[in-house]
Amino acid sequence: MADQTERKIRLYELALENGRSASPFVWRIRYALAHKGLPFESEYLGFREIPSKFAGRFKTVPVIECGATMMAESWDIAEYLDQAYPDRPALFTSPAELAMVRFTDQWFTAEVLRKMFRIYILDVHDAAHPQDRPYFRESREKGFLRGRSLEDFTADRLSRLPALREALAPLRAHLAKFPFLGGAHPNFADYIVLGAFIWAGSVATVPMLQSDDSLRPYIERGLDLYDGLARDPRMKPLYESGC
Amino acid sequence: MADQTERKIRLYELALENGRSASPFVWRIRYALAHKGLPFESEYLGFREIPSKFAGRFKTVPVIECGATMMAESWDIAEYLDQAYPDRPALFTSPAELAMVRFTDQWFTAEVLRKMFRIYILDVHDAAHPQDRPYFRESREKGFLRGRSLEDFTADRLSRLPALREALAPLRAHLAKFPFLGGAHPNFADYIVLGAFIWAGSVATVPMLQSDDSLRPYIERGLDLYDGLARDPRMKPLYESGC
Repeated sequence: MADQTERKIRLYELALENGRSASPFVWRIRYALAHKGLPFESEYLGFREIPSKFAGRFKTVPVIECGATMMAESWDIAEYLDQAYPDRPALFTSPAELAMVRFTDQWFTAEVLRKMFRIYILDVHDAAHPQDRPYFRESREKGFLRGRSLEDFTADRLSRLPALREALAPLRAHLAKFPFLGGAHPNFADYIVLGAFIWAGSVATVPMLQSDDSLRPYIERGLDLYDGLARDPRMKPLYESGC
Repeated sequence: MADQTERKIRLYELALENGRSASPFVWRIRYALAHKGLPFESEYLGFREIPSKFAGRFKTVPVIECGATMMAESWDIAEYLDQAYPDRPALFTSPAELAMVRFTDQWFTAEVLRKMFRIYILDVHDAAHPQDRPYFRESREKGFLRGRSLEDFTADRLSRLPALREALAPLRAHLAKFPFLGGAHPNFADYIVLGAFIWAGSVATVPMLQSDDSLRPYIERGLDLYDGLARDPRMKPLYESGC
């Protein structure tokens, strides 16, 4: 039996047609593993493969597997990683930091990430593996879209960009004073925010931000983290061209 | 000469006609001093007295004075208190917590506190010392209100309550899981939020929240902190009556 330090963590991810990982929640964990210096190997699944892969136990990724431990949900995984690897750099340096990051996630998910989903949901469909698209369309149109088609739901999406850009204002204000949400160094709040930009940048057929958005240097700094973990020529433009 | 441990901090506050302290920023520091177990004595100033009191050096409160040290700005004061009293309970347990609270403040000030000011600015005027009211009116109407009267600016304020209540959604989501923003224990993010409710509750002639708002137990828990530091029979209703 190998001891725990030799075991490599397996990370189950969601793959697009081009092989790119495309879940903002998986990206949180990719960054978290890099933050802790934990090597991992990825197993890429399509949308339809996830429930069957885990025999119904997990319906979403990320899922990590390490020895007999298998778990889903990005927050559960993040807290587990700090408990299981206390000798590695902490994701949460104190209970108060963890609570504050939880709050930031509440704000970000409600006020920003939902707006991104609204704008890019058809792009996710179009970027998925062809065999995943009918499943993706049917499940989303029946559920979140309440019977509307993906095309109808996103027809006015350009008119929704200004509200998304406006919702990012608290990030801009903070990042005018600090290089990262976590201050001098990135923390899990940064991975939450960066994960969303990377996910959107993996599928976006409409750039999210104006070319001179003050968030741009921050996003680029985030893409550079951990030897450019998230840098990928397959990413689509996040910023409008021109000046 | 008394040594530092014997010196009592003097806190300059803004007083309403009823003697109540009425600045969300002063309340942050009242809580911060209580958090650190530092006794203080208050000196109450009216709006007009602040610039002359400090010979133009400070134009806003809170101002703290301790020996030869005198400083304004609630954030500067909070960080100073942790440096000057490292043996007392920390306001910020790590640089990352501080950065996260800074971010929470950016969000709260932009998305919530501004909406509160918009609704309660005439109530502040009416609750101020009579001799402060002409100054308050003139400075606000010339500045922030760009020539509009306080009455005109707040005429539609009831129609603005729903947007304020909606803006509090991330707090409700977080506080469904944790007793405080800081987690199991209150931190400076709580003092920022509670200070705003206490300030508004000192002047409000229209209750801010519905009677069954899920934030109510949190606010009451906050008022109970530090032996009921913020409890005061002069506070006006924060919640609508009835069920």
